[in-house]
Parts: sequence; structure tokens; C-alpha cells
Amino acid sequence: MGDSESLGLHGIAELDLGRAARRGYPEAIYCAGKSAAQVGAIALAVKDAHEAGTTSGTVLFTRAAAEHAEAVLGVLPDAVHDEIGRILAWPPRAPEPTGGLVAVLCAGTSDLPVAREAVFTLTYLGRPTELVVDIGVAGIHRVLARQDLIDAARAIVVVAGMDGALPSVVAGLAHSPVVAVPTSVGYGAAFEGLAPLLSMLNACSPGVGVVNIDNGYGAGHLAAQIAAPLPAT
Amino acid sequence: MGDSESLGLHGIAELDLGRAARRGYPEAIYCAGKSAAQVGAIALAVKDAHEAGTTSGTVLFTRAAAEHAEAVLGVLPDAVHDEIGRILAWPPRAPEPTGGLVAVLCAGTSDLPVAREAVFTLTYLGRPTELVVDIGVAGIHRVLARQDLIDAARAIVVVAGMDGALPSVVAGLAHSPVVAVPTSVGYGAAFEGLAPLLSMLNACSPGVGVVNIDNGYGAGHLAAQIAAPLPAT
Amino acid sequence: MGDSESLGLHGIAELDLGRAARRGYPEAIYCAGKSAAQVGAIALAVKDAHEAGTTSGTVLFTRAAAEHAEAVLGVLPDAVHDEIGRILAWPPRAPEPTGGLVAVLCAGTSDLPVAREAVFTLTYLGRPTELVVDIGVAGIHRVLARQDLIDAARAIVVVAGMDGALPSVVAGLAHSPVVAVPTSVGYGAAFEGLAPLLSMLNACSPGVGVVNIDNGYGAGHLAAQIAAPLPAT
Amino acid sequence: MGDSESLGLHGIAELDLGRAARRGYPEAIYCAGKSAAQVGAIALAVKDAHEAGTTSGTVLFTRAAAEHAEAVLGVLPDAVHDEIGRILAWPPRAPEPTGGLVAVLCAGTSDLPVAREAVFTLTYLGRPTELVVDIGVAGIHRVLARQDLIDAARAIVVVAGMDGALPSVVAGLAHSPVVAVPTSVGYGAAFEGLAPLLSMLNACSPGVGVVNIDNGYGAGHLAAQIAAPLPAT
Amino acid sequence: MGDSESLGLHGIAELDLGRAARRGYPEAIYCAGKSAAQVGAIALAVKDAHEAGTTSGTVLFTRAAAEHAEAVLGVLPDAVHDEIGRILAWPPRAPEPTGGLVAVLCAGTSDLPVAREAVFTLTYLGRPTELVVDIGVAGIHRVLARQDLIDAARAIVVVAGMDGALPSVVAGLAHSPVVAVPTSVGYGAAFEGLAPLLSMLNACSPGVGVVNIDNGYGAGHLAAQIAAPLPAT
Amino acid sequence: MGDSESLGLHGIAELDLGRAARRGYPEAIYCAGKSAAQVGAIALAVKDAHEAGTTSGTVLFTRAAAEHAEAVLGVLPDAVHDEIGRILAWPPRAPEPTGGLVAVLCAGTSDLPVAREAVFTLTYLGRPTELVVDIGVAGIHRVLARQDLIDAARAIVVVAGMDGALPSVVAGLAHSPVVAVPTSVGYGAAFEGLAPLLSMLNACSPGVGVVNIDNGYGAGHLAAQIAAPLPAT
Amino acid sequence: MGDSESLGLHGIAELDLGRAARRGYPEAIYCAGKSAAQVGAIALAVKDAHEAGTTSGTVLFTRAAAEHAEAVLGVLPDAVHDEIGRILAWPPRAPEPTGGLVAVLCAGTSDLPVAREAVFTLTYLGRPTELVVDIGVAGIHRVLARQDLIDAARAIVVVAGMDGALPSVVAGLAHSPVVAVPTSVGYGAAFEGLAPLLSMLNACSPGVGVVNIDNGYGAGHLAAQIAAPLPAT
Amino acid sequence: MGDSESLGLHGIAELDLGRAARRGYPEAIYCAGKSAAQVGAIALAVKDAHEAGTTSGTVLFTRAAAEHAEAVLGVLPDAVHDEIGRILAWPPRAPEPTGGLVAVLCAGTSDLPVAREAVFTLTYLGRPTELVVDIGVAGIHRVLARQDLIDAARAIVVVAGMDGALPSVVAGLAHSPVVAVPTSVGYGAAFEGLAPLLSMLNACSPGVGVVNIDNGYGAGHLAAQIAAPLPAT
Repeated sequence: MGDSESLGLHGIAELDLGRAARRGYPEAIYCAGKSAAQVGAIALAVKDAHEAGTTSGTVLFTRAAAEHAEAVLGVLPDAVHDEIGRILAWPPRAPEPTGGLVAVLCAGTSDLPVAREAVFTLTYLGRPTELVVDIGVAGIHRVLARQDLIDAARAIVVVAGMDGALPSVVAGLAHSPVVAVPTSVGYGAAFEGLAPLLSMLNACSPGVGVVNIDNGYGAGHLAAQIAAPLPAT
Repeated sequence: MGDSESLGLHGIAELDLGRAARRGYPEAIYCAGKSAAQVGAIALAVKDAHEAGTTSGTVLFTRAAAEHAEAVLGVLPDAVHDEIGRILAWPPRAPEPTGGLVAVLCAGTSDLPVAREAVFTLTYLGRPTELVVDIGVAGIHRVLARQDLIDAARAIVVVAGMDGALPSVVAGLAHSPVVAVPTSVGYGAAFEGLAPLLSMLNACSPGVGVVNIDNGYGAGHLAAQIAAPLPAT
Repeated sequence: MGDSESLGLHGIAELDLGRAARRGYPEAIYCAGKSAAQVGAIALAVKDAHEAGTTSGTVLFTRAAAEHAEAVLGVLPDAVHDEIGRILAWPPRAPEPTGGLVAVLCAGTSDLPVAREAVFTLTYLGRPTELVVDIGVAGIHRVLARQDLIDAARAIVVVAGMDGALPSVVAGLAHSPVVAVPTSVGYGAAFEGLAPLLSMLNACSPGVGVVNIDNGYGAGHLAAQIAAPLPAT
Repeated sequence: MGDSESLGLHGIAELDLGRAARRGYPEAIYCAGKSAAQVGAIALAVKDAHEAGTTSGTVLFTRAAAEHAEAVLGVLPDAVHDEIGRILAWPPRAPEPTGGLVAVLCAGTSDLPVAREAVFTLTYLGRPTELVVDIGVAGIHRVLARQDLIDAARAIVVVAGMDGALPSVVAGLAHSPVVAVPTSVGYGAAFEGLAPLLSMLNACSPGVGVVNIDNGYGAGHLAAQIAAPLPAT
Repeated sequence: MGDSESLGLHGIAELDLGRAARRGYPEAIYCAGKSAAQVGAIALAVKDAHEAGTTSGTVLFTRAAAEHAEAVLGVLPDAVHDEIGRILAWPPRAPEPTGGLVAVLCAGTSDLPVAREAVFTLTYLGRPTELVVDIGVAGIHRVLARQDLIDAARAIVVVAGMDGALPSVVAGLAHSPVVAVPTSVGYGAAFEGLAPLLSMLNACSPGVGVVNIDNGYGAGHLAAQIAAPLPAT
Repeated sequence: MGDSESLGLHGIAELDLGRAARRGYPEAIYCAGKSAAQVGAIALAVKDAHEAGTTSGTVLFTRAAAEHAEAVLGVLPDAVHDEIGRILAWPPRAPEPTGGLVAVLCAGTSDLPVAREAVFTLTYLGRPTELVVDIGVAGIHRVLARQDLIDAARAIVVVAGMDGALPSVVAGLAHSPVVAVPTSVGYGAAFEGLAPLLSMLNACSPGVGVVNIDNGYGAGHLAAQIAAPLPAT
Repeated sequence: MGDSESLGLHGIAELDLGRAARRGYPEAIYCAGKSAAQVGAIALAVKDAHEAGTTSGTVLFTRAAAEHAEAVLGVLPDAVHDEIGRILAWPPRAPEPTGGLVAVLCAGTSDLPVAREAVFTLTYLGRPTELVVDIGVAGIHRVLARQDLIDAARAIVVVAGMDGALPSVVAGLAHSPVVAVPTSVGYGAAFEGLAPLLSMLNACSPGVGVVNIDNGYGAGHLAAQIAAPLPAT
Repeated sequence: MGDSESLGLHGIAELDLGRAARRGYPEAIYCAGKSAAQVGAIALAVKDAHEAGTTSGTVLFTRAAAEHAEAVLGVLPDAVHDEIGRILAWPPRAPEPTGGLVAVLCAGTSDLPVAREAVFTLTYLGRPTELVVDIGVAGIHRVLARQDLIDAARAIVVVAGMDGALPSVVAGLAHSPVVAVPTSVGYGAAFEGLAPLLSMLNACSPGVGVVNIDNGYGAGHLAAQIAAPLPAT
């Protein structure tokens, strides 16, 4: 009854290396709730699998606190790390962008960690991406000034906390799908993101798909799928 | 142990006829949860008080279902009744409008009963009022087209269900206070008005005061106070 | 202070006929919370706009109860009506299907009204669609038997109540995006759809975008956008 | 993929310097959820804009923790700081008070930080303000003793946690609008301010507009708008 | 597998006739959720037990809808029935009042059914009782005018919906315990009585015990125990 | 776009006739949310499968309202129907009881429909069952009087609404597992069964497994599995 | 704009020294949410008032964290302090016990801080009190063994977390009123005390009054009032 | 009024040493909310009872933080401690496994502490147990690959956070009962385990009993009872 390391990897995790083949998108390791030692053991298994040729795709480490990042970088020192977005990628080289443009619109500066997690994910899943920050509905002219970008995008990620009003406004101006990410930014009756979550689920403009509160990774993944290049026929 | 009538008015209600003197605004009778007989008895007491000269102001009957309205009109046949807004006023003559203009912006047609309750209240509390319907954020150009009205108003009532995004946008365009009324319009995760309620409480633009879900009367009352003429000095 | 008709259409609604041009998708009229008279007046305005050539696209009437449908059909007798999906379309002719295939997977028979609303919407927004019913996770072999369809689809709408587990399983098998629709099917701790809503927002497979509880229309709209043909360049 | 500073201000925020012109009230920077470095960068941009003459109004920094305040004061050493209210203003000189008197009634000592945030905001938006502390309904005589102030005010901010009963009582005594601020003071079934929030939204006296839990800034802003001097005509 | 009657009383209920001996207060039958036939069968068992001398105390039938009352009166035609309070008692003769006075304060007319259920219960448990209606905090003078009654009572039942503010105010004026009953009166953010329930649980005056929403019976029972005559020693 | 019948069974449902083989327990049809016509079509398919020899096990129809029951009985006139438990079984003959005894303890008469649904399910899944009604904790002696039954049972189903306290008490007296079923019996802060649900999930005695509110079928199924005869070896 | 001390006591609090005269019970200072400096200043004011003879009663300091206690003891070194109950009293001498016996039943050891807060309060409000610990319903024989104490008490305080089942059981055995205190003991679906709170509000035995989660002070105060000696007549 | 030690064990806890005899399963000490000193005192009482021969069974210490574990090990140095599962057992020797096999399926690595608490409990209650980790529905093939284990088990504990979908899938594949344990793993709309809790309560496969969020001990206890050897007859 020792600690987790003594159990070997099979006592703590089972990598799903077939996922890239099955779904077309690589595995991601959710670090929250894992010990640094567990994340390090997983990073080692990823490295081993690459060296053994079992897999070749990029692996993302999401929701990585400082100690998780340290554990990953200890094993994979050339991994790329966005501290603000709490996310790492390895191998470090992002694929060439293909598919349609994805716009990431971030309502406020406090929402930036989530928006950057989405941008990072999109980059490593291979989509061209453009980030716009501080574009809340309190100054609606800032939204309208980006109509060109809204028109050019094949998918639009909208990140907002508090009233969560931005996706409704953007979807009403767009032909492309909107992926809405509520954030836990705010206080009191924001109830840790419940307010923007409900607001986005009730967007009066159709064309909005919602992901979990603060789920920049999920939003990036979904947008990357929406804007994926069509399969050759 | 008979029914309520046998108790006389004092067994069922106690009119607050001093309220007009104390607060400057007349009494309103909340009909929901009262029997038609109780509402009729109250209407009679109002009539008696007027005839006795104890009071002279308008009385509103709010949240009046068909049977409540019938009971009021049975006693006070010249009362004015807005069926859509479920509200009546007596005596029927509204005061001359004084004070600042109040704009009432209604996001969707389904929100109209609440908006009309607000307009009716404002009219009988003596404010000049202008109602605009179907001005949701899904077509933001419809909001921007009303900038003149937004600029002219001394108070703005915004009525919206679903995402409740309109007050944030309007407050960001206005110098005057916004009174936000969430409505129970919507379904599912609107949770009977909880979604727009939370959205409005978290409006990213300051200058928004929120009233209860579907509370058109309360919004009209508050806006009437905000836009009241200044007391002579 | 009469009823809504006396106010003309402008007292009750403001059609957004520019929406097709602006967004590429036509207007939809949300019937719930409107009176039959109001819906009939809107149908008439739609008809007038078509006759005047102001617009030419299809209009959907969603969440139409029996009396709403009757009002629409009174004005537009050739409108198509899916009673189970509570939805109508006019003009009646659906566009030729273009873009990618959309699979609609319906977990149980009780979820069928929502699934059919999605199918109807997809049909009138012009996407090829295939519906599969009664494919819940309690018999996981029924899901696995549809791998071909999952592979062929460019977007997958998954409709489920109760535990809302189906989108996680399907997304784990798919390269295309999943649009998840929680339904209010269930009782007790399903809390009118809250249980599957939360389950879907927390799907352990990335690639899931969630819409409001019972929102078949919104799911169909979003999937139609995802599977839209790429613009000619 | 460095930290936020390397992105320049445009990577983290977009000042809305036109807000004073558009709305008549200056910009406020919400510090929570921002890093100290981000707040410092914004403070610098504010300073630059003043020096460049792009703007001249006061800027508030709200919800400023100790490290945020330090960052602001590092750049703008003459900024005024109320530690209890967690708020700063710069330039430091408050405008001459104009418009109507605003009374700020604070139910308990534990609510004081929120009340002081409101007072500070009112002062820097230019209203004459009077603060009364420890005036809860448990000793109703303390409220009644302030009838003169209630009568003199053109807007009344009421700050209360726990049962949130004070706004109902005060509104029943007042002709002017009440801005109600629920606080997170309390424990257990206060649910971080939910109890007074709901209580205030259901105030049995009309004339109460509610802002977010602990939102002293928003309450002060709204009250400042209500009590604003009328525009010259 | 027939319906309930075929099971005899033991298939549907088990009277707790020892309760009067054990607790000093008689049994009450909760009718909601029972069929009229079940309630009738229980009434018959009560009658039989009285005739057999197994018990002699009063039995209350609470939450009795019209069909329940009819079933009881069919078996026990001399039972006393308060339709507004939805409650019956049999045998019909109430005990002589003993113990301390219980004041029942009812905030609004819509709360009257709950208040009358409390009064009825108190009467049949043998306490002297005085009911005051329409004494909400919106007109605080109406509360203060009853200081004599508040001083005279050995227990005070306060019935209020909406903001639920009355118990805090009354407890702050009283030496005796307050039994607070939130009601489902109100709408929107009253959330079927949640708002006054939370408000009362957070009463800023100590000395308040809360019972379930709309639980007039429970409040009456508890107050009867509080004001019970002291046992002879 | 006709109604559901025109789609054939495959348009509305997919029977899982392999379930008895796979799990050892037969299929159940959840009727709520299905139309009577749909339920009738499913009953017909069940009959056809039996006649074709594709399956031979019992089928249950749960949550059957009167019109559902009528539709089933129209096709399968010898089906057994417990109206109170809203459940039917076909073919009508229950299996010989095997395995351990299951005790079903029902706290109050109003909980009886749920308890009977559990008893019916147990009977048709083949377990010996004993039902005890009206055994709430308000008269704890009634529970203690059943210690023999508690000792004899291999599984105990406890059905309770309101405070949901009974499972804790029973589990503290039992060596066998307790299956706890919260019911929606109660009002106000019972919140449609939330109160007993939470109470049971937090039972201070270990050995309690909870099913959904009012889920008598699920409780019966789970208890039947727990008390199943051991497989021969 | 300095810190709170510079405002004098009147800037931070207003002692209600008339409360003992008005209600018969002394003031209590709620320390949570106050700074240590504020609590110290209040303690000083209390001391001054005693020395000036303005008041003579005991003052309680509730919810006192270590730093609050230190501040009180710095000013009033002979104050009595129960660290577990987080409460202090001054002057230190408790009154002679009068009135009826109050039993305090504590379900588990983890509930002890709340139970001791109640005992301490009762002691300083002058009631004879007996505390029993670890008497949860998981071992119901421990409750039954205390029937004598239950019979002897004029009020019973029951403190319980988790399932909150104890008050129902105790009230079913008692003639005296039960004051139920839910605690935040537990985890997961206990939701910080929500589970026992709801359970207690829905107690199937009448005669239970509920106070806020963890509110030992309030429970003690209410029980002291219930068990108060009758006024001489 | 000293601290808890001065009260002796009877001031803080009452061991229920008869529980093994009464229920067949030994006592467990819930450490959360207790001080280390209190836990140490209880450990000493356990040791004394063993030495006195009053009891002989294993005692578990659950939810033991580091300081609790240290206190136990200080008194009972040979106690077995699983740090990840936060649980200890004494005396250290586990019983020989009897009864049926219990499979513990753990959806993700982050759920491991809860799964290990269940495994530890099962081991010390005497059941043969097999643990499988990282078997979430995102890769459904990993579940299907364990059909043999699912078939062999007499009870299956399923531990999952986030969408909580695994129990539905597993129950649909199993003849044995499933004990579902939601975990607080996840973020945002997982709401500390609410999402998987609701999902599991609404499992579309019957045969699932749910325990509290993160309650590995309770799940292990319940599964041990389900898989217990039949009593000799």
C-alpha cells in the first residue's frame, strides 16, 4: 500500500494512444487532480511511446499548475509552455496551419488565460488563429469594428465571463458557428461562471455551441474540428 | 370558521392609504394569491375611501388574472384595464406627464406583457413614456438605431428574457440609469428567468439596477422615481 | 389600451428580414409566449414581405403549440408542419441538400420530439440528414453498430435526456464535431434536463458543443452551419 | 509564448477612453483576475493617455488587492487609495459635488468595505454623499431615527447581508429610489450573499433596484446617475 | 393487485394513536399525496378508535384539498373545516385555551391560508391566539403599532412571503421566541418560497426558529409547545 | 412529415431484446414522454417478438399513465396492471420467487405508489418480497418493532420523502444493504424530493445506495440483483 | 481616507445598548467579517459603557477567530473564552441558572464546536443546560437511552450534520420544542450543510424550529427564550 | 471551559463498539472536522477497548489528513495507512477474503484517491477485489475489453467524475449491481461533483445505486455487503 509510483503506470493511468488514429486528434493529459509525480510518470510514458514509434502525434498537457509543468519539463525539456494558458505541448513543433481561420474573441483581460488556452490548442491542432482581446459588449463599437474578422472566420471562439452577452451579439453578426466559453471571471451572482454559462445556453441568436466554464482547451478542440479541412474525396 | 368575507376587510387586508403621503406614490394591490372575493372586497374599500375623502390618488391592481379583473370591474366599472399587462387603474384618469422621459425597450414579443405592465405603471405614476418592441441583441443594428431615444431618456427600462444581454449593451450606450427586468420567457436552462436575472446582475456595464423576474410594475415604479421632477426648492 | 392587434405589427414585433443576407440563414419565429393572434399577425407580415419581394427565404415557426400552428396555417395554408417537432416551415419547399451529412442520434423514444425538430431544421436549412432513434448507452452495442454513420457525418447531433451520457461516448468515436442537446426527458433528479445538461458540459471527450435543453432547433441550426458547404473562393 | 507583458497592451487590454464622452462617466478598471503586471501596464497606459491629452477624466481601479494597489501606486504614486474599499482613483482630485444628495446606509460593520466602495465611487463621480453605519433592522429605531436623511436624499444606497431586510424597510419610508447591494456577509444559508440578494429582489416595497452581491462600485455608479444634475436645456 | 382499499388500512397506513400519550399532542393526518379513498379510510379508522376508546384526542387533517375534505366529512360529518386553511379537526370541540398567548402576524393577504392553518392548529392544541393580517414591513408603522401584542405574547408566529423581512423586525422588538413561516407567495426570484426561507434563516435578530415553506400547521404546533402551560411540579 | 406511426417501429424505438441474455434481467419500457400510440406500437412489437420466439421473458411497462395502460391492455389484454404503482407486466405470470427475501419499508402512505412500483418489479424479477407501510421515524418504535424482518432480509428497500431519515436509521440496524428511494412527497423545502435525496446520500450509516427520486422500479431492480441467487458453480 | 480606526466607533459600529431593556437579552457582537482592530474598538466601547453605567449586562463575542479573541482579551483580559465554540463573554460571571432545563444533543464529534457555542450561549443567558455528544441515528439505541433527559427538558437543541435525521427522531419522542441546528459537517452532497438544513425543515415530526447552518449562538438564544422563566404576574 | 481533552472521551465521542455485533461490520472513525487531538484520543480508546477485550474487530479511520494519520500512528504505530486513499486500518491484518469478487473501475487517474479508499475498505471488510484504472467512456474499447471482469464480479464499484457516464455503460453490460461513486474531479459546471452525481442518479440502465460524492469508503462498505458470503443455514 505505498504511493502511486510503486504501482507503475498501469496503476495510475492507461494512455489512449489509438486516439489520434481513431478520432484524428491527439491525446491530451488533464493534469488537475493528479500529483506532479503522476504527471511526470505519464510524460515519461509519452516519451517512451514516441521513442518506440507507437505514436507520433503531439500531446497536450492541460490545466497544468506550476508543479505539473515542472514535472513535464523535467522529462520533456523542449516542451512548449504557455504559463498564462496553463498548457504545454510536446513535441514542440506545431503543425502547419490548415483548414479555415478561427477567430478567438476575448471579452476582458481577466478572461485571457482561457482564451490563450484555446489559441494554444488551436495552434497545436493545426488551425490558423487570430486572437482579439478586450472586446466586451459594454463598448459595442469594439465588436462592430471586427466585422471583417467575423466574416473571414470559419469558426469563432467567444470567451466571456460576467453577463456572458458577447456570443449572442457575435452570433447575430456571423455566418459561421460560434463556440462559446463562459469563464469564472466575476464575483457574487456570477456564481463561479454559472451566470455566463446560462446566458450563453440561452443565446437569442442561433448558432452557438457552449462548452464548460473556463474550458479553453475544449473550445479550441471543437473549433479546430469545425474548421478542419474537408477530407479529400 | 367561514370564508374570508365573513371576517370583514380587517380579517383579510389593511389598506395603507397613507402611502401616497409618505412616499409620494400611491398604493398598489397585488392580486396573485388572493381570491376574487378578496380583491373585490379591497376594491370596495378603495371606493369607500375615495368617497369618504380619506384618499384621492390612483390605485393600481397588479397581476390581475381574468377573475380578479372581473371582481375589480364589478365594483369599479370605469377602471382602466390592460389585459396583456394584467393590470388595472382606478380612478381611470392618468395624471399629466411630468418629469423626464422614460424609454421602455422590450427585447422580444414574448416579453411584451411585462413591458406593457411597466408602461401602464409609468403612465399612471405620471411619466412620459415611449415603448420600443422587438429590439433584441440578435440584431444589434435595431438597438443602435435607437441611440436618439437612449440619449433623450432620463431612465430606461429594459425588458428581456433568455440571455438577458440587452441591458449590458444599452447601459454601455447610455448616460441615464437602466432598470433591467428579466423575464421568464425562454425554456430549459432559462430556468424560469434565472438566466437573464443572473446575466443582468452581472452586467459588464455599470449603471444597471435589477428588479424581480417579470416585475414590470416594480420596474415602472422605480423608473418613475428616477425620472421624477425635482422637488421645488 | 386594447389588445395587441390594435397596435399593428410594430406594436408587437419587428421582423429581421435582413438576417438571411447578414448571416446566410433565415429568420425563425419563436412561438412560445406569444398569443395565437400575434403569431398569425407575424405570419401575415411574412407573407406580405414575400409578396412585396422584400425577402424570399424560408421562415421557420418553432415551439408552435396547436393554436400557434392553426394561426400560421390559417394565413399560410401550404406551410409544412411537423406536429411532433412542433415546427412549421414556409414556403413549403425545402432547398436541395448541400454541404456535409449530418447524423442525428436520438437516445430514446421520449427524446424524439427534440430530435425531429433538429431534423426538420436541418432539412429546411439545406443539409442532408440521417436520423437514428433509440440508441442509448444502456445497450452500447447499438451505438457501436453505427460507426459507419459516425465516420461519414460532418456533424453529429446527439439528443439525450436522463444521464446525458451518449455525447461523451459518440465524441470518443468521432472525428467530426458533436452538437449535444440535453432533453427534459426523465424525472426526479433529472431536474427538467439539468442532469444531462451538466453531464454534456462535462463530457470527458473533447469535441462537444452544447445547446439549451430541448433546443432541437438550435442544434439543427448549429449543425447546419458546421456542415455548410465551403464558400467558393 | 512569453508572459503578458511581451504582448504589449494590445495583447492584454483595450482602453475604452471614449466612454466618458459616450456615457458621461469615466472608465473603471476591474482588477480581480488580472495580474499585478497587467494592472500596472494598464495604469501606465492611462498615464500616457492623460499626458497625450487623449483623455482627462478620473479612472477608478476597483477590486484592487494589495498587489494591484502597489502596481498602480508604482506608476501613479499620487493615486488615492481606500484600502477597506479596495479601490483607487487617479488623478487624485475628486470633482466638486453636484446633483442630489446620496445617502449610503450600511446595515452592519461587516458590510463596511462594500459601503465604502460605494461612497468612494460616488465621491469621484461627483455626488454629495452621507454614510450611516450599523443601522440594521434588528434595532428598527436606528432606521427610523434617520427619516430626515431619507427624506433629503435623491438616491439611497442600502448595503446589507444576512436577511437583506433593510432595503424593504427603507424603501417603504422613502420617496427616492433605493439601490440595494446584497453582501456576502453571513454564513451557512446566506450562501455567499444569495439570501440577501433574493430578499432584495423580492422587496415588498416597490422602488428598489438591485446590483450584484458586494458590488459597491456598481451601486455608487447607479446612484450617481440617479442623482445626477439635470442637463441644462 | 387491486387498488388500495382492497388492502385494508394496514396496507395503506398505520395510525400512531400512542402519540398523544408519548408527546402530549395528538396525531395529524397529512392528506396531500393520498387519494380521497385513503383519507376516507383513515377517517374511518379514527372514528373506530374513538368508539373503541383506544384514543380520545382531537385529530387534525392537514393540507386537505376539496376531495379530501369531502371524504373526511362523509365519515365524520361534524368535523370542523377551515377551507382557506385547508384543515379539519375532529371531534369538533376545541379544548379550553391554556398556556400563554400566541400572536400570529401575517404579512400580506396572500399569506392568509398559511396563517389560518396556524391559528386553527393553535386553537385545537389549546392555546389562546390572536391573528393580525396585512402587517408587512413596507409600512413599518403597522408593525410598531402592535408592540403591545408583541409584548403580551409568549410565542409569536410570523407568516411572510416575498422578502421574508418581517421576522427579523419583530424578533428585534420581542422578548418571546418567533416562529417564522416563509410562504410561497410571490413570483420570479421568490422561487416558490426560497427567498423568504433564506431570509428568515439569516435573520439578523436572534430568537427566530424557522419551519418549512407554507407550513402553518408546523408553526402552530411548535408555538403551542413553546407557549404550553408549565407542568405541575 | 406525418405522425410517428407512419414511421414504423424503427422510426420510434429499437427493442433491446438481447438484454435478458446479456444482463439476466428483462427489458422495461419507460412510458412517460411517449404517446399512447407509441406505447401501443411497442406493445405490439413485444407481442410479435414473443410469437416469433425471439424472446420469452417478461416485459415491464413503467410510469404508465392511464392512457398508456389502456394502449398496452388494448394489445396485451392479459397484462397485469398495478394502477397505484403505474406499472404493467406481460406475460402476466410472475416467476417463482428465488434468492433472498427483500423487505420494502415505506415511510408514509403518500409514498405508497413508489413502494408498490418496487414490490411489483421485485415480484416480476422473481424475488420473495414483504411490504411494510407507514413506518416513519416520527414513531421510531414502529421501526424497532420490525427488527426481525430487517434481520431476515438480504436486501432492504426504504422509501421515504420529506426528511428522508429512515434509511439512516434502518441501515444502522441492518447487516444487509439498504436501497434508498427518496420520494417527491412533501412540499416547500422538500423541493420535489431534493431534501430526502440529499439526506439519503449523506446517510450517517454506511451501507446505503440511493436511486433517483420516485424510482421504485430502479430500486426494485437493484434489490433484485443484490438478493439474486448465487450462480451455480 | 485612512483606515477604520480614524473614523472613531461611529464610523464602524453603533452599539445597541438598549437591547437588553427592549428584549430582555443582551447584545452580541458578530466578529466574522470585522477586522481585529474593529472588534477591539467595540470591546473598548463595551468596557466604557459598563464603566459609565450605561449598561450592565453580559456581552457575547461570537464567531471569534483567534485574532478577534486576542483583540477582545487585550481590552477585557478577564473575558471567558471557549476556543472550540469560538465565543467569548464579558463580564465573566454567568448568571444563576433560572427557567427550564435545556438539553443539547450533538450528533457527532465533528459537530461539537457548534454544540458548545450553544451551551456557552445558554449558560450566559442563564439557563441550566446538559450536553450529550455523539448520539447520531446510526446507533439509535444511544438516542433511546436518553429518554429521561428528553422528558426532563423544557427545550431541546439538536445539532447534526450530514443527513440531519436526529431532530425528526428526537421530536417524535419529546413533548418539548426542538431547536434544530444543521451543521456544515460532511462533504460532497452535504453541500456545506444544505442537506441537513433541508432535512430538518422537512422533519416529519412537528415541533421542530430550524436555525441557520452552524448557528449555535442562535440556537442557544432561541432555546433560552423558550425555556425562560415565566414573568411574574 | 477548557479544550476538548479536558473533557475526557465522553466529552467528545462515544464509541459504538456494539456495531460489529449488531451489523456485522466494524466501526469507522470519520476524521474530517475533528482535531488531531480528538482523533488521537479516539485511537487510544480503541486500543484500550482491544486490550480490555471489549471488541476485537478492525477499526477504520477515514478522511484522515496528514495530522490525523500522525495522531493515529502515534498511538497505534502498526496501523496500515494508504496516503492516497486517506485511510488507516488497525489492527493491521486484513481478514481472509470471502464472498464474491468486487471489481473497482476507476474512470480517470484523478479519481484514484476515491477508488483506492474503496479498495482499502473492501480489503479490510474481507472481500476479494480487483482495481482497474483509467477506463473512461472517451475510449469505450477500454471498457469493453473488461467484459470478463464485469461478468466475474458479484458487485462492481464504478468511480467517475466529470460526466459520470461510466456507470450507465457498465450497468448495461452487467448482471451484478453497480455501486456508483461520483467524484469532485472536474471544474466549472461539474460543480464539485454535482454533474456526475445527477448523471448517475439518472443512469438509463437500471441496477445502479449511488453513494455520496467522493465517498469511496461508503461504496466499499456497500459493495462488501452486496458481495458478502451467504449466511450458513
